[in-house]
Amino acid sequence: MQLLEALNWRYATKKMDDSYVVPQELVNEIIEAAYLAPTSSGLQPFQVFSISNKELREKIQPIAYGQSQITDGSHVLVFAAWDKYTDERIDAIFDHMNTERGLPLETTDEYKAGLKAQLYAMSEEQQAAHAAKQAYIGFGIAITAAAMLKVDATPMEGFVNADLDKLLGLEEKGLKSTTILTLGKRDAEGDWLVNMKKVRHPKNTFLTEIK
Amino acid sequence: MQLLEALNWRYATKKMDDSYVVPQELVNEIIEAAYLAPTSSGLQPFQVFSISNKELREKIQPIAYGQSQITDGSHVLVFAAWDKYTDERIDAIFDHMNTERGLPLETTDEYKAGLKAQLYAMSEEQQAAHAAKQAYIGFGIAITAAAMLKVDATPMEGFVNADLDKLLGLEEKGLKSTTILTLGKRDAEGDWLVNMKKVRHPKNTFLTEIK
Repeated sequence: MQLLEALNWRYATKKMDDSYVVPQELVNEIIEAAYLAPTSSGLQPFQVFSISNKELREKIQPIAYGQSQITDGSHVLVFAAWDKYTDERIDAIFDHMNTERGLPLETTDEYKAGLKAQLYAMSEEQQAAHAAKQAYIGFGIAITAAAMLKVDATPMEGFVNADLDKLLGLEEKGLKSTTILTLGKRDAEGDWLVNMKKVRHPKNTFLTEIK
Repeated sequence: MQLLEALNWRYATKKMDDSYVVPQELVNEIIEAAYLAPTSSGLQPFQVFSISNKELREKIQPIAYGQSQITDGSHVLVFAAWDKYTDERIDAIFDHMNTERGLPLETTDEYKAGLKAQLYAMSEEQQAAHAAKQAYIGFGIAITAAAMLKVDATPMEGFVNADLDKLLGLEEKGLKSTTILTLGKRDAEGDWLVNMKKVRHPKNTFLTEIK
């Protein structure tokens, strides 16, 4: 589908068909899109957990206030961002990048030092928020990818982050859950939102053009 | 272009051709994609400023550490998020939504009350960060839209937010600048990044599958 058509087609699916499983190659494409998301200085400070395991999804459901899509859908993608920036993390990124590009590891030393100074000037909470924002870029792109592939999806912020972090062992990994994207197929008959008009702010309150 | 192809084609353009102007209909399509971005509870707590005015872009450039794309490109999109949540803002959203859907204004009262309780439990800084995250969803989608339209773009966080807020009068509007997306056309000969390999974390450190 074309992009705008896809974005108009999609909606936050409220009821999914529990007999449908999204083909794995489509899930892979959605994850690949998030993987290719640009992030601040290429830090890519987030990971994706793709959970199709039913038992685990049943444990996630109460953490997400019982939302039915968690188990009626077939895949739950959890976006988890770094809890803070560290030398180890930043150095690994740049070492990997320079190696892949066939450049000496020192190539980016000056840039990296400036970046670290900037990141470490933030409090740990601000660092986590900065990393989470990057995850939202990937999240937005994954939502778009799903729509283009005509895979229904529910973007979710409505869950108890600390509980999900605990369930998935994220704290030990230095991660914090940010968002969930549930994938499945709309059960149009049971979904109150499917036929509702998509509403956005009036365009003139959204956009200011300065020509 | 197909999505993954587009995401592989794009890169953070470092040098743009200053003689090229992105056709307005393509700019409009990129903005429309951001406009259609899903956001938490449909709050859509951000706006886009589309700036083609050369004099204004010349004033933005020093605020963005002199990055040449600001003036070599033809359009600068500034994404600005709400500085905090207020009754006025939230009520306006739900009133507009219910009106557009032909529903009584009270339809969402219970939901709205719960949402407000949740949002107001956050500090003002946390509210701003929450709103900014929603802007990043739209930002990610705009980046994707540009790539699909083969419009080169530079996503930027590297600018002095307070100075840009002042220049654009954002504080009076209750907004905070979050990111910039500069649109233009790559000047491949002058761009050190154009031929560099796109590098991401090794896939196995990005993705965890639980089947």
